[in-house]
Amino acid sequence: MSDATSTPLSNKLPLGFRWSSVKAGIKASGKPDVALAVCNGGAAAAAMFTSNQVVAAPVTVGRRHLTLTGGRVTAVLVNAGNANCATGEPGIAACRKSCIAVAEAFGCVFDEIFPSSTGIIGVPLPVEKLVAAVPAAKAALGDKAENAEAFATAILTTDTKLKVAQESFEIDGKTVNLFGCAKGAGMIGPQLVPHATMLVYLFTDLAASSDQLRSMLGAAVASSFNSISIDGDMSTNDTVLLLASGKGGVSAQGSAVPAFEAALQRVCESLAHAIVDDGEGVSHVVTLEISGAPSDDDAKAIARTIATSPLCKTAWSSADPNWGRLLAAAGRAGVAFDPAQVLITIAGLPVFEYGVRAADFDEAATHAAMSEREYTIMIQMGNGAGRAHFITCDLTHEYVTINADYST
Amino acid sequence: MSDATSTPLSNKLPLGFRWSSVKAGIKASGKPDVALAVCNGGAAAAAMFTSNQVVAAPVTVGRRHLTLTGGRVTAVLVNAGNANCATGEPGIAACRKSCIAVAEAFGCVFDEIFPSSTGIIGVPLPVEKLVAAVPAAKAALGDKAENAEAFATAILTTDTKLKVAQESFEIDGKTVNLFGCAKGAGMIGPQLVPHATMLVYLFTDLAASSDQLRSMLGAAVASSFNSISIDGDMSTNDTVLLLASGKGGVSAQGSAVPAFEAALQRVCESLAHAIVDDGEGVSHVVTLEISGAPSDDDAKAIARTIATSPLCKTAWSSADPNWGRLLAAAGRAGVAFDPAQVLITIAGLPVFEYGVRAADFDEAATHAAMSEREYTIMIQMGNGAGRAHFITCDLTHEYVTINADYST
Repeated sequence: MSDATSTPLSNKLPLGFRWSSVKAGIKASGKPDVALAVCNGGAAAAAMFTSNQVVAAPVTVGRRHLTLTGGRVTAVLVNAGNANCATGEPGIAACRKSCIAVAEAFGCVFDEIFPSSTGIIGVPLPVEKLVAAVPAAKAALGDKAENAEAFATAILTTDTKLKVAQESFEIDGKTVNLFGCAKGAGMIGPQLVPHATMLVYLFTDLAASSDQLRSMLGAAVASSFNSISIDGDMSTNDTVLLLASGKGGVSAQGSAVPAFEAALQRVCESLAHAIVDDGEGVSHVVTLEISGAPSDDDAKAIARTIATSPLCKTAWSSADPNWGRLLAAAGRAGVAFDPAQVLITIAGLPVFEYGVRAADFDEAATHAAMSEREYTIMIQMGNGAGRAHFITCDLTHEYVTINADYST
Repeated sequence: MSDATSTPLSNKLPLGFRWSSVKAGIKASGKPDVALAVCNGGAAAAAMFTSNQVVAAPVTVGRRHLTLTGGRVTAVLVNAGNANCATGEPGIAACRKSCIAVAEAFGCVFDEIFPSSTGIIGVPLPVEKLVAAVPAAKAALGDKAENAEAFATAILTTDTKLKVAQESFEIDGKTVNLFGCAKGAGMIGPQLVPHATMLVYLFTDLAASSDQLRSMLGAAVASSFNSISIDGDMSTNDTVLLLASGKGGVSAQGSAVPAFEAALQRVCESLAHAIVDDGEGVSHVVTLEISGAPSDDDAKAIARTIATSPLCKTAWSSADPNWGRLLAAAGRAGVAFDPAQVLITIAGLPVFEYGVRAADFDEAATHAAMSEREYTIMIQMGNGAGRAHFITCDLTHEYVTINADYST
């Protein structure tokens, strides 16, 4: 069962992994800011990274490490508080230095260390703090729920909630465990490509090859992290990493494959929803169900245009049933359609049909439905087969306050 | 000289036109909401409209009228307070009815009436109020500055300032006059195509064919109205109309052509700047100068992505020199570039170069420069020939307040 709340994790965690976190003094708040995950002997790995032209040093290094090792990771080192992005060659050198320190601590080649950073862009990484934290991080490692939770907590930045999800299922009497954690909460409009400052780490004890993991991860990401938007801004550091230790005794074959794919999709969708729910300043979570478009890509383009429209998002913040903004945003998505064919419902209440305001449009009822924290907007574009399921949120005063927070 | 302030207009107005406005009771505020402009005998006309898939009834009707007449307009009828959009066949019928009423008042064919509407989407147009206002609008017509100003005032909605511009120049001892007016102020991210709820009306006494006007208008719009963004939302009603009465005694030939083109461009750029300056909740006007991109289209894509990035726009609202957000937004514009080649200056102060924070980055000085109401961000992407000049603004609490204004 997926669980993306702050409820403590169960101990049904994937075998073969240990986690920890320490305070290295990188976050200005003084909270835990370095997270470490280790799989003795190495785990098979697949990752997806941001498609931004500007990528952080750890993205460059992590991508290269996965290529050099053919998809093998012994340890994951994450720091929060500094993105190590737009830091040039010194940023790459700092990242490599941190990987070398972890490799020495665990007796592996440094290519098997997977680095991640999240935080402010353009400030040199204080790598000496990171390196100095490695021994304490190693000493704190453990395979209990509290350890996994510590890892999941240290990767957070402006997040207000822990974002974790778990699944376990049986195959031939043996258990496969999957644990995932994520951080948001701004600059979220990911477009991950196979080579994603949303950070997501997924751990399983299934035995699978890197190629198998890559294929399964691509499908799960498409319907989850690539189908959400908070502010439409795509980070330079987005990363989703899936590690498989193979220590659970179940291999990715036969019925284990669809079972794992389904579990992976549920975990990713749970984490993706949790990211939007904890988005900066979010007061409403809105699910967009687009159907009847010429293609799935067209449906997603319409969903993404609505999800990033400031006029739609501000209307949602006040539960304003101003459906004309939805229609106008759909109309600039680059997809041809006939407005007379369009049907729009908000929380199941019809607002637009047959080219005009719905005959039984009930402004008060629609406003009341939109006053709930979560609801669905359904837009049927026409008779096409294209569909999209997309989760987004409103644009509030609080979002502006968070992102305009600059003290002179 | 261009003048886009609220300074009263000079009487050097184009010959052949008369203007007026009346209160028809369509705006809830009770302010003047119907504007009329008339050219006895008809004017040559060129127009550009929104490229939104969803267009208001007056856009459909106006486009058709220009086609049927070959670009001839006797009168322009504008109402504010209701967009007559997403109103279906009844919306078209209401628009036609208003055109017929004006045509009867001036003894012309109704295809020579050019309709425009701006305001809320999806509410039936109270056409009876519009028709009832025609006699009073006709009676109030005049060719003085006060009349032109009355027209320019009635078309406003959430605008806080009058937006007008004038140019006059001499050719062979004869004067050519050009007068333009515009309304903003939200849902501004126009993408006009030749067939734009930014409304712009341009009047001249030059003698020119509809074809000549269309060509000159296209060039002027590209560097003005198509190079601005407030919130990135594209309206269903955007319209730019250029009318030439031919009553000034100068024809569009020889040196009159470049002189008029230059005057038209200045008027359009002045109005475009005024629209951003009066944008909803705007506290900073930011000019983006992108250069060195592979192509002009690439440069414009980068400018538009930055101009619509909530993270960039909120940072501008607090004068936060967070240049990493500029770089991250440029990186998701779909244009390939090498960050190490990128140079970014804010108000002339270097912030990023050689792939890292500028060596002489001065945070306090940059913050001070960004505290001015207007400044320029210059981004040199590389060695390409592509350039873009783009005017945009910050995203403020006031914007959210204006657009989330919905009382239960």
